[in-house]
Amino acid sequence: MFENENFLLKNAEAARIYERFCKGLPIVDYHCHLKSYEIYKNVKFRNITELWLSKDHYKWRLMRANGIDEARITGSASEKEKFFAWAETIERCPGNPLYHWTHMELSEFFDITLPLNSKNAPLIWEKVNQQLGNQGLGARDFISKSNVISIATTDHPLSHLEYHKKIAASDFGVQVIPTFRMDNVLRVEKTSWFDEISASYQRNFSYLEEYLLFIKERIDFFDHLGCRSTDLGMGTLDWTPIQTEPENTFSQIRKGGKVSKLEMADLKTFILIELLGYISEKDWVFQLHFGAVGSVNEESKERLGLGKGFDTVTEQGNVSAPLLFLFNQLDRRKSLPKTILYNIDGAKNVVTESVMACFQNNEEAVRGKMQHGPAWWFQDTLRGNQRQLEDLAEQGILMNFIGMTTDSRSFLSYVRHDYFRRLLCSLLGTWIEAGEMPKDDDLIQRFIEDVCYKNALNYFKLEGRK
Amino acid sequence: MFENENFLLKNAEAARIYERFCKGLPIVDYHCHLKSYEIYKNVKFRNITELWLSKDHYKWRLMRANGIDEARITGSASEKEKFFAWAETIERCPGNPLYHWTHMELSEFFDITLPLNSKNAPLIWEKVNQQLGNQGLGARDFISKSNVISIATTDHPLSHLEYHKKIAASDFGVQVIPTFRMDNVLRVEKTSWFDEISASYQRNFSYLEEYLLFIKERIDFFDHLGCRSTDLGMGTLDWTPIQTEPENTFSQIRKGGKVSKLEMADLKTFILIELLGYISEKDWVFQLHFGAVGSVNEESKERLGLGKGFDTVTEQGNVSAPLLFLFNQLDRRKSLPKTILYNIDGAKNVVTESVMACFQNNEEAVRGKMQHGPAWWFQDTLRGNQRQLEDLAEQGILMNFIGMTTDSRSFLSYVRHDYFRRLLCSLLGTWIEAGEMPKDDDLIQRFIEDVCYKNALNYFKLEGRK
Amino acid sequence: MFENENFLLKNAEAARIYERFCKGLPIVDYHCHLKSYEIYKNVKFRNITELWLSKDHYKWRLMRANGIDEARITGSASEKEKFFAWAETIERCPGNPLYHWTHMELSEFFDITLPLNSKNAPLIWEKVNQQLGNQGLGARDFISKSNVISIATTDHPLSHLEYHKKIAASDFGVQVIPTFRMDNVLRVEKTSWFDEISASYQRNFSYLEEYLLFIKERIDFFDHLGCRSTDLGMGTLDWTPIQTEPENTFSQIRKGGKVSKLEMADLKTFILIELLGYISEKDWVFQLHFGAVGSVNEESKERLGLGKGFDTVTEQGNVSAPLLFLFNQLDRRKSLPKTILYNIDGAKNVVTESVMACFQNNEEAVRGKMQHGPAWWFQDTLRGNQRQLEDLAEQGILMNFIGMTTDSRSFLSYVRHDYFRRLLCSLLGTWIEAGEMPKDDDLIQRFIEDVCYKNALNYFKLEGRK
Repeated sequence: MFENENFLLKNAEAARIYERFCKGLPIVDYHCHLKSYEIYKNVKFRNITELWLSKDHYKWRLMRANGIDEARITGSASEKEKFFAWAETIERCPGNPLYHWTHMELSEFFDITLPLNSKNAPLIWEKVNQQLGNQGLGARDFISKSNVISIATTDHPLSHLEYHKKIAASDFGVQVIPTFRMDNVLRVEKTSWFDEISASYQRNFSYLEEYLLFIKERIDFFDHLGCRSTDLGMGTLDWTPIQTEPENTFSQIRKGGKVSKLEMADLKTFILIELLGYISEKDWVFQLHFGAVGSVNEESKERLGLGKGFDTVTEQGNVSAPLLFLFNQLDRRKSLPKTILYNIDGAKNVVTESVMACFQNNEEAVRGKMQHGPAWWFQDTLRGNQRQLEDLAEQGILMNFIGMTTDSRSFLSYVRHDYFRRLLCSLLGTWIEAGEMPKDDDLIQRFIEDVCYKNALNYFKLEGRK
Repeated sequence: MFENENFLLKNAEAARIYERFCKGLPIVDYHCHLKSYEIYKNVKFRNITELWLSKDHYKWRLMRANGIDEARITGSASEKEKFFAWAETIERCPGNPLYHWTHMELSEFFDITLPLNSKNAPLIWEKVNQQLGNQGLGARDFISKSNVISIATTDHPLSHLEYHKKIAASDFGVQVIPTFRMDNVLRVEKTSWFDEISASYQRNFSYLEEYLLFIKERIDFFDHLGCRSTDLGMGTLDWTPIQTEPENTFSQIRKGGKVSKLEMADLKTFILIELLGYISEKDWVFQLHFGAVGSVNEESKERLGLGKGFDTVTEQGNVSAPLLFLFNQLDRRKSLPKTILYNIDGAKNVVTESVMACFQNNEEAVRGKMQHGPAWWFQDTLRGNQRQLEDLAEQGILMNFIGMTTDSRSFLSYVRHDYFRRLLCSLLGTWIEAGEMPKDDDLIQRFIEDVCYKNALNYFKLEGRK
Repeated sequence: MFENENFLLKNAEAARIYERFCKGLPIVDYHCHLKSYEIYKNVKFRNITELWLSKDHYKWRLMRANGIDEARITGSASEKEKFFAWAETIERCPGNPLYHWTHMELSEFFDITLPLNSKNAPLIWEKVNQQLGNQGLGARDFISKSNVISIATTDHPLSHLEYHKKIAASDFGVQVIPTFRMDNVLRVEKTSWFDEISASYQRNFSYLEEYLLFIKERIDFFDHLGCRSTDLGMGTLDWTPIQTEPENTFSQIRKGGKVSKLEMADLKTFILIELLGYISEKDWVFQLHFGAVGSVNEESKERLGLGKGFDTVTEQGNVSAPLLFLFNQLDRRKSLPKTILYNIDGAKNVVTESVMACFQNNEEAVRGKMQHGPAWWFQDTLRGNQRQLEDLAEQGILMNFIGMTTDSRSFLSYVRHDYFRRLLCSLLGTWIEAGEMPKDDDLIQRFIEDVCYKNALNYFKLEGRK
């Protein structure tokens, strides 16, 4: 970045091992929000505003913190005005991960090493746009240039996965598989959800068993198309022992009857346990993101809608109790799947890791069945990543870590893998220089390759490439 | 400190930018507890014990941790004995912020670079005292030497602000404005508070509307004398949706009737929202300090009284929920004022910042309407300040930060601005050397000046100097 | 470690002061779980597996995280197989404290500086085993080589302390004293506990007063044999004001009657306060470990039993409230003993320290009556120790800290003192180089000696050696 080859590499050993063992390794992006449609179509971009600012709520949020009017963020201003508003914002953001990512993306994909600021904005607007457009760089170019070998998108549970099929049948050399997003499946309080199923699949359910059967068919379908995991997002974890009759509750709901809060909570817990049992049979991975709440600014939600950058970390006194409950339930039935826990609050790293460590598998050949996911969302910062790496190293086995994933909607976010890898090499370099780890190139190479992509391939049972 | 020019400046770039862009910049101390009377009178000090040890509960607390008997802390021992007890304590305190501040103050104001310890205590006692006394350094000298251009004291809501008027009319070249301390205004459960109003202003209230009108008159009066903000301290944040009738509750209280806990809480929430609406109209700033509780050692409270250094961080499982409630209430009415949040527990930095970020203004020319206040009280340490700077940089826009304020009762505490500035330069220097920020002197200078004083001037709409 | 003399010593000053003032200082291990029997017998070890892997649940836990089957952990595999399973695990654990400890132990006690991995395992297996066995190194050799001068074991409250007596009467030159473990004493809900007392001491209790008298006799007995402290472990702190009649509750229990949850909680709180009052009279130290819960994996608990490495950090929204309650109760009666607080969650360091600071003694010659214990269990890591040192320095007086203790079952764990001391010297060296502390060798030497062992000797009133 800024023509500094040693960006983030804090000492000589870090620079050496990054250059020698890390640079350019393949990427396995096992959890992201790219659209399979856009990959299949090799979508192109009118200009840098479409590419950067049309969907990125991280950037919108930062622009608001800089006092930019909404018209130039999500509103009616021209694309050029929006880009200039972003330039005048990011200029003031040294220390923010978006500052790092922005300049890494400019450098990596567009060969621009100038800082983005009001002064350089006109030149950068021209220079990037020249490389975009119908004849320019498209989705697949960003993927290929980044040496990505496997992508797992995140998909609606009712999806027909049409574009996953088409990509598989195409000549595109990168593996693109779906992930079964479970959030809607648990929203049994919503009639709209059942209406949606009925509309798409002409299926109606009076009994819980029928519903679970349908969902399991969906899981089978995803599995058939290479899906290796399910993803669930929760604000507050609230699982407690089931005291009511989930089957009755379900039938009651379907008849339009009233059910108590406890009955509803029990039903959801029951469904989750059932389905995790099923994905355990399939040897899928359970990814759990917890602790964030969305669209908390009520006025903005009404005015702008959901997903516009008004989200926050929430707090939960006790995450260990619900996690222990869930894992014990599954473990007793021998149906605890491989699990990745993504906590939003770094202060919960150690408790998360200590719970995980109580359910590591020792009966099969999986190293690190329970994984502490990479620093997520508000924690996906320089220090958040460092902290996750260091906490995990101290509480478990960092060398068994499945490593970074972008969790992103943008084709440029692959630079975050490089960001992560530089931090990893910086950490190892520091250990080696302090005598905390031997300077053993064989160990160093295996460590770096395992964390950068090999553990992920093995954990998700992916081949990499097609 | 200790004749080390590079105190806290961890690398060459940090030292360069501190020397070139930071050293000696003006100070805007937008929240402190200095007495306007003492500034007006240019109060002098008998000796260093009066200056240092007569009011400073931070020092008393540390002396107790060193096993000093209370007589030599707040008791009957001579001033010289107390100073020596402090010397024998601070000698053992490397790593504590008081160790840093003590030596910075000796160096900055009294030209003493010796460490304070039992051996050097006699010499330092003599050397400092020579510079004090009736002919020596007074309140205004410390202010002037520190290049302070604006001071906001913290004032009782019933104050006549007599000395603020006198300072304004004097030839003292520093702006000294009041802050409207709101704590008492919310203590509607105390008849003593209404008695106090009655005694000073001959005003009695049967109805809430009358009371609010009186408080708004007080706000107008403060505003007239240059006040730009209100300050509120809370232990635990407890705002929830109002379910009862605040007007009825108020009348009930004034008639001496009983009200429920919920009614009382609702009344306080209602008053707070009403008054924050009013200060929003005035474009004042709302400063909220939360999470500390005072005088928790019961025996000491009875024996020594309040404010003697027996205070603690308290804990609140969830600060996001009450903050979101309050901000949504105000935001919906378009009456959310500029707000500074000071959390006492550094583990709450990220959640505080993520809540703030959901209410940043994008409709006017304020950069950083919602501010994460500088590390406060138990967090006002070297690492607490570093962490606040780094967390804020990662979660928001550090360059828009209004920067340090002393929150102090002492005229010597201005060295804390230098302390903060050295940490800031150290952080920027580290970023520049790691390639995380370009070595662009124009950017660096603007960054430092903005955070050190210009953002504060703009945020509070101060002129600086008179 | 790995032939790097400067292991953990991050700068030149750190290396200088470690070498000059720290290396080889005596060890006061004021809290551990060594068996007095093993010390008395100078127990020997068949091989490194018996020494390292027969009791160490930290290692078992890490092996599970590496996918090792239980047979090779606590099961039926041969000792050699178990050692090789450990070798293949630890090889992958750079960054984990066990990685550091393992190599420090090999180097310190067996003169092996090779990394332990699959390749070196055969050689290390041979080389270590040669130094063990009936003619080899025994418990006392490890103690003597480490320059330990005082050991406090942790003992069952009904113990006859037979081996403590025998050690005292022997020619072994190291002081070995017991600690009164209080956990069982509070388990008044268990009839098995009273049966145990009855079986060992033929004492039965109908009234609480009788029970307390018996426990006080036990305390007297321990005191007579040199005991200087009591230890208590709690998951969640739950002390609240007593609302019921503890004497009645006790009698009710003894009669086999039912009591409410509140009555039981009150009874326990009452007993704790009574006994802490008694140990305060004896000038003993109260050690409180809180926030960990054991054996949370239900299936593994049934299969393998307790204490097998399935433990976790738990979370408590508010630790300050119960601590303040307890300390105020004792302080009012002038019976608050010297207290060491060990919190399991590093995020609670500052609140723990701020509560402590409100109860520091200023009436006698104890420096640091309330102590923040060294980083414990899941926090006993490189960064956990650093954080505890730095938090304590900022919130209190690090130079008054009683320093490290192993809390270990292993005779090799004394290397953790060296680990801690290197971190301490690294911290002081960093301060000195940054100008935060004067380069005053007298101060540095006193600082290091005080924290490494002199404060502990003074705090526990130990002579060191016999």
